[in-house]
Amino acid sequence: MKVSELSRRTGVRVPLIKYYLREGMLPPGRATAANQADYGEDHVRRLRLIRTLIGTRGLSAGATKEILDAITGGQEDLHQVLGIVLGVRPAKGAEPAPAPDPEASDPDPEGLAAARGLIGAMGWDVSPGNPATRTLAEVLTALDHLGTDVDWRTLLPYARLADDMAELDLRQLDGGGDPLAQAERAVLVTVLLEPALLALRRLAQEDKSSRLFGGAHADGAGEA
Amino acid sequence: MKVSELSRRTGVRVPLIKYYLREGMLPPGRATAANQADYGEDHVRRLRLIRTLIGTRGLSAGATKEILDAITGGQEDLHQVLGIVLGVRPAKGAEPAPAPDPEASDPDPEGLAAARGLIGAMGWDVSPGNPATRTLAEVLTALDHLGTDVDWRTLLPYARLADDMAELDLRQLDGGGDPLAQAERAVLVTVLLEPALLALRRLAQEDKSSRLFGGAHADGAGEA
Repeated sequence: MKVSELSRRTGVRVPLIKYYLREGMLPPGRATAANQADYGEDHVRRLRLIRTLIGTRGLSAGATKEILDAITGGQEDLHQVLGIVLGVRPAKGAEPAPAPDPEASDPDPEGLAAARGLIGAMGWDVSPGNPATRTLAEVLTALDHLGTDVDWRTLLPYARLADDMAELDLRQLDGGGDPLAQAERAVLVTVLLEPALLALRRLAQEDKSSRLFGGAHADGAGEA
Repeated sequence: MKVSELSRRTGVRVPLIKYYLREGMLPPGRATAANQADYGEDHVRRLRLIRTLIGTRGLSAGATKEILDAITGGQEDLHQVLGIVLGVRPAKGAEPAPAPDPEASDPDPEGLAAARGLIGAMGWDVSPGNPATRTLAEVLTALDHLGTDVDWRTLLPYARLADDMAELDLRQLDGGGDPLAQAERAVLVTVLLEPALLALRRLAQEDKSSRLFGGAHADGAGEA
């Protein structure tokens, strides 16, 4: 199909498709004339994946390219792909966290020690460079600075639920299929599911809140 | 204390403190002279909460102000406060999700039906306007467009874990204390814990991945 058809099929504007082509995020089409190329179903699928990673997850174009390279660059070792997606290796693999606040300071040593205490209590075998350790430390530090009594021990039952979730995640990946499909699925399950999981928790919170603290939608606000 | 001391204690620059004062996010200090005011420990605590909401969660100043107003504006009904934090009421309550991609389209009706199918299967009693329903619909639509076989039934076991998590969350809030402290805790548990929960899942994923797919940190990358 022509680039105009590719644009129509995916809803991505032609200039943006050309940008993805220039950046190597989308493989070139088959040249049919000096200034024309033919695109296939693979391009449709790849474009949708790009839009999903950038749109739903707010990943930068650079981080998206790294993930796409991991999927399609002959990287067929699932542990490696997961490592890249999780930001464990290589260092510039993925940056799924929102841009850190420029005024935020480094996690303090106590926060880091608390995060490591939790990881140790769970018996998790993780790389020292896993960026999630830092995120955890930052939240624990913030909770401490705000004068709450929430510490890493409070988070232990949450860590156990996260552990169950990760078991579910990895079971999703173990379904066989060609390595490329498995790698793509790894990205979807790890990265794309995150907003869905937070959404599920928020829905469950509203449900529990109306059961516990009562007065379900008494004001009628929020009707859509 | 003077504003300079408040700045030193919290690490927030004086111009930014003045901005928060102008915007009504920080209550005025006690006037001591024509151009001077005295600030107390409440200001320190409030400033830290503002920086946490904006810094760690990436909330806009406007959304942060709404949440602060809910906490301190005499709003002592925990269900109401949670509703505001969850974006259920009023409509402009909180906007914890990252800015939606301008090219992203509305969730399609099938995605919404799938999200509602999941909510129904869980028996959750939630407002039709809960923005988390839309987020869930968007992810389900994306997974469908990407040609995966992940549908709302795949997410059922995740929804059960999210349900357990929400039970834990609400138990955190039930600890008594004055209503103001409870409301503040509600914000912390719901909003601030989100990045920590994703971090816990990512850590558990790395742990499971190295156990299942092997070769723990073979390349030594990610050492920090």
